[in-house]
Amino acid sequence: MRELEEKILSEGKVLPGEVLKVGSFLNQQLDVTFLMKMGEEIARLFKDSGITKVLTIEASGIAIAVAAAYKLGVSVVFAKKNKSSNVGSDVYATTVFSYTHNIENNVIVSKDYMNSDDVILIVDDFLAKGAALEGLIRLVNQAEAKCAGCAIAIEKGFQGGGDSIRAKGIRVESLAIIDSMDDTSVTFREQN
Amino acid sequence: MRELEEKILSEGKVLPGEVLKVGSFLNQQLDVTFLMKMGEEIARLFKDSGITKVLTIEASGIAIAVAAAYKLGVSVVFAKKNKSSNVGSDVYATTVFSYTHNIENNVIVSKDYMNSDDVILIVDDFLAKGAALEGLIRLVNQAEAKCAGCAIAIEKGFQGGGDSIRAKGIRVESLAIIDSMDDTSVTFREQN
Repeated sequence: MRELEEKILSEGKVLPGEVLKVGSFLNQQLDVTFLMKMGEEIARLFKDSGITKVLTIEASGIAIAVAAAYKLGVSVVFAKKNKSSNVGSDVYATTVFSYTHNIENNVIVSKDYMNSDDVILIVDDFLAKGAALEGLIRLVNQAEAKCAGCAIAIEKGFQGGGDSIRAKGIRVESLAIIDSMDDTSVTFREQN
Repeated sequence: MRELEEKILSEGKVLPGEVLKVGSFLNQQLDVTFLMKMGEEIARLFKDSGITKVLTIEASGIAIAVAAAYKLGVSVVFAKKNKSSNVGSDVYATTVFSYTHNIENNVIVSKDYMNSDDVILIVDDFLAKGAALEGLIRLVNQAEAKCAGCAIAIEKGFQGGGDSIRAKGIRVESLAIIDSMDDTSVTFREQN
């Protein structure tokens, strides 16, 4: 999505440790008009997939998931991070390692909100090593729902998570894929 | 908002400890079409206030804040919960006690995203004792921005937080105010 690439170039900042700061429009501050444009593009990409629900993970995925679900006309379910390992039998549960915070989170979704009739689109703001996405895919599998694919705003292609999930045959669409970045330049992967 | 009251009555569940569970549409699962209707009502209530930004707090406030900001045509800023008490000089910071998790959170907003030119509408999904809202008001005051008021989906009127903030002269609009609830009935405050 050309507009997202332009926004990353004009407003993003590359910080040490392969961190891309896009706080001005996707994190901390949300440019809601632009968010809805990204939602529209995600809806266009998956319009023929029969999506029944969008699944995301709190907290920063919620905004773009709402935008995509609004344009697809479906509900959002969000997986919660849970410090307690004491999860009930009424939830799907898995663990996801957070490289940002260097901790392992329990991640749960109530069984009330996802089942084998669902066709799930997983949506998140960032994709790096893919740990969160793989956790969400495990939750979809536990529900015996169909995973139609994953839609991401910004993929750090050079961290390999997206390509490793694609290699498993799962559709991953990222609105912008960064193949390399440093403090002077950002290179995007060509997509059609 | 009559439709919200009806949804609380048909889909909400009152649990022990004065907990109202509305996971099917406002928490865990988000009914995005309905969320946008709530956003529209909030925009209608504050349409003459010259709002420049919506401020909320992660995680569950983000969805309704996005809906309200979309209908108002402004951006969202969200305050982050931060376990570290080591906050820099580039943020507004305060502490908020969470009665749900029984811990005190540091809550921060980057100074980049709120300043004295802003007219802020604070938006959140729930209002009970008002601790989160009072924290957000302190952040607005630190920025020397104008607080146009607070817009809430569901206020637990019987916990007093909303009325205590109103008594300070701050406008608080809640789309539904619950004056009492138990496992057999929910009573709403009359609003016009």
